Amino acid sequence: MRVYLDHAATTPLRPEARDAWLAAHEVLGNPSSIHGAGQDARRLLEDAREQVASALGCQPIEVVFTSGGTEAANLALKGMWWSRSDGTDAIVLPDGEHHATLDVVEWLASAEGARVRAVPLDPFGRIVPDVFAGALAGAAAATALVANNEVGTIQDAAALASAASEARVPLHLDAVSALGQVPVDFAGWRGTGTTGDGLVALSVSAHKVGGPVGVGAAVVSRHARVTPLVHGGGQQRGLRAGTQDVAGAVAFAAAARAAEAQRQAETARIAGLRDRLVAGIRSSIPDAELLGDPRERLPGNAHVLFPDAAGETLLFLLDMDGIAVSTGSACQAGVAEPSHVVRALGRDDRAARSVLRFTLGYTSTDDDVDAVLARLAPAYARAVASGARSAGRS
Amino acid sequence: MRVYLDHAATTPLRPEARDAWLAAHEVLGNPSSIHGAGQDARRLLEDAREQVASALGCQPIEVVFTSGGTEAANLALKGMWWSRSDGTDAIVLPDGEHHATLDVVEWLASAEGARVRAVPLDPFGRIVPDVFAGALAGAAAATALVANNEVGTIQDAAALASAASEARVPLHLDAVSALGQVPVDFAGWRGTGTTGDGLVALSVSAHKVGGPVGVGAAVVSRHARVTPLVHGGGQQRGLRAGTQDVAGAVAFAAAARAAEAQRQAETARIAGLRDRLVAGIRSSIPDAELLGDPRERLPGNAHVLFPDAAGETLLFLLDMDGIAVSTGSACQAGVAEPSHVVRALGRDDRAARSVLRFTLGYTSTDDDVDAVLARLAPAYARAVASGARSAGRS
Repeated sequence: MRVYLDHAATTPLRPEARDAWLAAHEVLGNPSSIHGAGQDARRLLEDAREQVASALGCQPIEVVFTSGGTEAANLALKGMWWSRSDGTDAIVLPDGEHHATLDVVEWLASAEGARVRAVPLDPFGRIVPDVFAGALAGAAAATALVANNEVGTIQDAAALASAASEARVPLHLDAVSALGQVPVDFAGWRGTGTTGDGLVALSVSAHKVGGPVGVGAAVVSRHARVTPLVHGGGQQRGLRAGTQDVAGAVAFAAAARAAEAQRQAETARIAGLRDRLVAGIRSSIPDAELLGDPRERLPGNAHVLFPDAAGETLLFLLDMDGIAVSTGSACQAGVAEPSHVVRALGRDDRAARSVLRFTLGYTSTDDDVDAVLARLAPAYARAVASGARSAGRS
Repeated sequence: MRVYLDHAATTPLRPEARDAWLAAHEVLGNPSSIHGAGQDARRLLEDAREQVASALGCQPIEVVFTSGGTEAANLALKGMWWSRSDGTDAIVLPDGEHHATLDVVEWLASAEGARVRAVPLDPFGRIVPDVFAGALAGAAAATALVANNEVGTIQDAAALASAASEARVPLHLDAVSALGQVPVDFAGWRGTGTTGDGLVALSVSAHKVGGPVGVGAAVVSRHARVTPLVHGGGQQRGLRAGTQDVAGAVAFAAAARAAEAQRQAETARIAGLRDRLVAGIRSSIPDAELLGDPRERLPGNAHVLFPDAAGETLLFLLDMDGIAVSTGSACQAGVAEPSHVVRALGRDDRAARSVLRFTLGYTSTDDDVDAVLARLAPAYARAVASGARSAGRS
């Protein structure tokens, strides 16, 4: 039996998305071609754009399809930076952001002279809106996660967007881990302004909601000033060149539609499984500690600190039993470094190396939870013993 | 009956690619995850990388998967520009390049101070290697098409690469329209140098060889200095962040393998169809003129000037009969402007509006050619009459 509890890294392709992808290939044509075949492809693409817009609470014209969340975040943040015209040079970056924004801001700092204004998290991983607001004055741009992909804490996106609007700073929200799990409401968060600041961009990814890898979207407000990241044939309002991936967009739309349709029922079901998992862990391993916000957290996320055990050892022991979990973001390309997110909660390196992230999703079942609970306590005992031996040797 | 003669815009998905894409989804895991599921995904990905490398004549580690040819060209050219360290500021850009490189260079010129050194084409669309070499001295970077996607002219890639190596200028080759139709040999063209100049990058796209849209690759030499376009989790040598699209890579590999395996037989077959098409056009429309190099041209490409007829009118008339052709690159997002490629052959705007591009591919048949030949002469007569009426009105 394989138990997959790493839905935050990637999710199984939904049958609706697979079928949509296959069906889209019955239409042959580049949607930028002006012949009938091309126009048939364009209709499929624009239908997909409408469905994705509906899931994100934005206008279809604001949906810019990309190759995923990372490209979308790069487009938003570099695009905001390159298009600024007022001499501002500060970028507001909360601690504990995903590498898809963190590494972009660090590059803008090292290569382009941006100054980084950090915003500390509280011990539950929350961005305190007043603290965020206090960092915004005169900034060129700001970014924030809607929900933290590691520790699961859900931020107050509406308050962050409102603070950015008040400060007249363009804001990007990274909603990759939020989509399908919490309501994403671009227009509602943005409000009614027609200026190029406040919430102007938002990133999402298909494969986190049962769509294919390699597809995502940047929502870019019609009022935003954003320089393209990928130049070329002028597709998608000139914001993202390249032949548009009709099948990918259609599959993303099918997945987003399914995820949104089932969201309320599924998040309740998944949160129930997650709560049973957490309760079971705590009862068998009393020292285990749930990190992140205990209430305002992603329904599928259990991020647990196991004192005196190396997360990586636990991961390998569970993996030998066919259980896939994670020590943090898969997006660090397999590098086993202490999580900067856990450090941002005020924990030390040792704690940051002693965490496991269990993320449940639409395919998760009671059996998965049972499998973890049956194997975790002995694995923990072995990991603690192994750590003690290592310490003894050193 | 639908006749699709626009393979240069996009090709039908090969069954091998579709099956590979579906099979890859039987493996669930992010290839950056360290658990067994992730490692299974990574093995699929690295197998795909080896197969694509084999089709391109490069090392697997040099293959950087991207979302397509446009992103690959952006990565190569912007990456070369941002990583230069010697104060050089000229970019060598032949006339008639694809928008995926042309628009990148124009952006670097307008936003980043690059100076553009144009290289004129000869009347057949050829880049004359000596003229190219003459433009290279002290340049920061250079780019060139391996084969022109509109008029079909195949360049002497080896000579261009050798000139770049001689001049110690880093060169990007756009092989998007070449792959599967002419041999692509990165290592052979690059030669044995271990420096960061000469041929250092090459772009290809899956959907031009029967793979899915949304997948491509940049070959980036291990010796190249290239700043990433998309920052984030450090995947792919740090050159291109974002969750790696295993299914897309595997489907691309399957398509590239099929295209390469059949290339010699298929290009002979397709060139035969194309030659019959051109001969038939000339015999029924004596004024029609084949543009581009008559011999060194892509086997599937017939790019024809129809004097006194608007290409767009011809396109619509053929489209009404179910025949899909193009007036030029689909990558200009449907904008009906006179082709800059035809202008680069020394033709005027009027000629540049009077062309049709027929591009044949692996699904093309004798019936397709017959269908065009049956309908083209009457369409041409109507288009000429319609043009004469418009001229009379103006």
